[in-house]
Amino acid sequence: MLENKGRLEVSQMGKEELIKHLGEFFQLSNASSLSGIENDASVLKMGDQLTLTTSTLAIENVHFNLGYFPLKHLGYKTVAAAAADIVGMNGTPSQIRINIGASNRFSVEALEEFTAGVKFCCERYGIDLVGLNITSSNTGLIIGAQMIGTVKEKELVQRKGAAENELICVSGDLGAAYTGLLILNREMQVFAVNPTQQPDLEGYSYIIERQLKPEPRVDVIEDLKKAGILPTSMINVKNGLANALLHLCQQSDCGCTIYEEKLPVDLLTFDTLKELKIVATTIALNGGEDYEVLFTIKQEDYEKIKNLKEISVIGHITAASAGKNLVTNDQKLIELQAQGFQAE
Amino acid sequence: MLENKGRLEVSQMGKEELIKHLGEFFQLSNASSLSGIENDASVLKMGDQLTLTTSTLAIENVHFNLGYFPLKHLGYKTVAAAAADIVGMNGTPSQIRINIGASNRFSVEALEEFTAGVKFCCERYGIDLVGLNITSSNTGLIIGAQMIGTVKEKELVQRKGAAENELICVSGDLGAAYTGLLILNREMQVFAVNPTQQPDLEGYSYIIERQLKPEPRVDVIEDLKKAGILPTSMINVKNGLANALLHLCQQSDCGCTIYEEKLPVDLLTFDTLKELKIVATTIALNGGEDYEVLFTIKQEDYEKIKNLKEISVIGHITAASAGKNLVTNDQKLIELQAQGFQAE
Repeated sequence: MLENKGRLEVSQMGKEELIKHLGEFFQLSNASSLSGIENDASVLKMGDQLTLTTSTLAIENVHFNLGYFPLKHLGYKTVAAAAADIVGMNGTPSQIRINIGASNRFSVEALEEFTAGVKFCCERYGIDLVGLNITSSNTGLIIGAQMIGTVKEKELVQRKGAAENELICVSGDLGAAYTGLLILNREMQVFAVNPTQQPDLEGYSYIIERQLKPEPRVDVIEDLKKAGILPTSMINVKNGLANALLHLCQQSDCGCTIYEEKLPVDLLTFDTLKELKIVATTIALNGGEDYEVLFTIKQEDYEKIKNLKEISVIGHITAASAGKNLVTNDQKLIELQAQGFQAE
Repeated sequence: MLENKGRLEVSQMGKEELIKHLGEFFQLSNASSLSGIENDASVLKMGDQLTLTTSTLAIENVHFNLGYFPLKHLGYKTVAAAAADIVGMNGTPSQIRINIGASNRFSVEALEEFTAGVKFCCERYGIDLVGLNITSSNTGLIIGAQMIGTVKEKELVQRKGAAENELICVSGDLGAAYTGLLILNREMQVFAVNPTQQPDLEGYSYIIERQLKPEPRVDVIEDLKKAGILPTSMINVKNGLANALLHLCQQSDCGCTIYEEKLPVDLLTFDTLKELKIVATTIALNGGEDYEVLFTIKQEDYEKIKNLKEISVIGHITAASAGKNLVTNDQKLIELQAQGFQAE
């Protein structure tokens, strides 16, 4: 990605100058951002709303592999993944701080690429960059991100709050990001064996985009508001549906029953997993990095939600004593286990 | 430090269980902490105050060396260093989120040690832990911390705000933490050559404590409030006095003159540097990790500040055109350069 550009060492520019330089790509757009990246801390004015804040840490060769992960996409995903944690509480992301640890393998141009992705996602979702630090790393690239957001006190939705007989809903489709990762890994292995062979990614665009360029479901939160639905509980699906559902049930002190036939799996995801000889339901339940929203609603809200095309009703909440179960297509009851790929 | 304990692998307990386990050591104490570590994001209610937020990233063998840095102290310092950025804007730290990246070298007991240090500092300064995540690392220990704090709108002090003829003040003393690091490094090298020799740290307690267990100067902020002084500009001294002063002058669009004879250097720091054949002024100007507060006050506030024993007046603000200068003990004028050790 950087071959056609020159190479300026970070040490040539100096870290402080580089931070200033990269910061110049950003402008503040939220009234709550009283300061940008220029102080020790960011200054925010949240008025009568609640402040939401979350943080992520991503390490090269643990959370991402630059062999197939373009830096620009990594920047985008850094913002998107952190935003998804705010969205997963019915909130609106508004500010982000980013700490980069970079070894001398990374030039100024490389960090510009990363920053361009950050900026793209920030602009798309109206998020201000209010902190940027760069430090040395002895081990490649490390990205720490802190997202701040707001929610009206009455609209806050947490993991706790689900009650018996309520409906369990999930946005979008499941397992696509993990399936995209499997394809990228496969092509990288082919490339390792035969470097002259180009990666064959044709026909896999959707699942690869889900892996490289995920989106926080701000649209779903807005759809729910427009439909007049306030979920009773909510969580960001980042480490698999099963993991998210178990967290939600644990915090809400309840059980659940979901149905295999109701799990939303995209056709390309399904076909690709078939090609890879992997059971789609396993990945729908346990594949990470979907960044979809899992939530519960009262039964009487069903009429309001049934026509929202981005949302699937996948089951219902039960008493805690009934356990956490999946009803398979052949009507077997299987206890849900958290074996989710852990994105963090 | 862990020799007398058993060893439980993180994989035996599982990361989610471990997060819950370590979280149980903490209780919320601030009214603004509406949630603890249990959700995707922390929920804060900041009322009519401004929210301050800062973030740090520390990487093993870049920012700390576990050869001489006990994990408990590292936990303490993680909180203290992040708090210092809030204090450096005249704010009060109130919540922290911590993301740990740990390789399988680190056992549950090791992370408990780290957490014990976090808790010790949190309790000392009334800070709530509202987020805790643990992820895998391929490279030792990585600590990301995000501190949140508050300040009344009228009491916010930023890097910008200093004006000509105002007095430049700094809290505590300078260069001790870096001098402590030099001694720890020296003893580690001795140990590498001769492992039977015990480190000889006697007589160096103060400077070693400044390195291993720094304190955010919450006391200084409180002293200033009690004395009825609102500084005109302020910054956390983390990468050396010169670096901090240059930042402050740049943001305030002014110059400065400081005096070598006024720089507060502790006697042990001075003697140790003499022993190491290093000029104390160089370290006072450029040694990192002091976490003192540098600030400017109006001349008429001098009477209020002159008897505060933790504060030294070291010079005054000039027009930008006059440059940024140090007057040496032999009355030479030297331009200040930022060659500070960069803590981040």
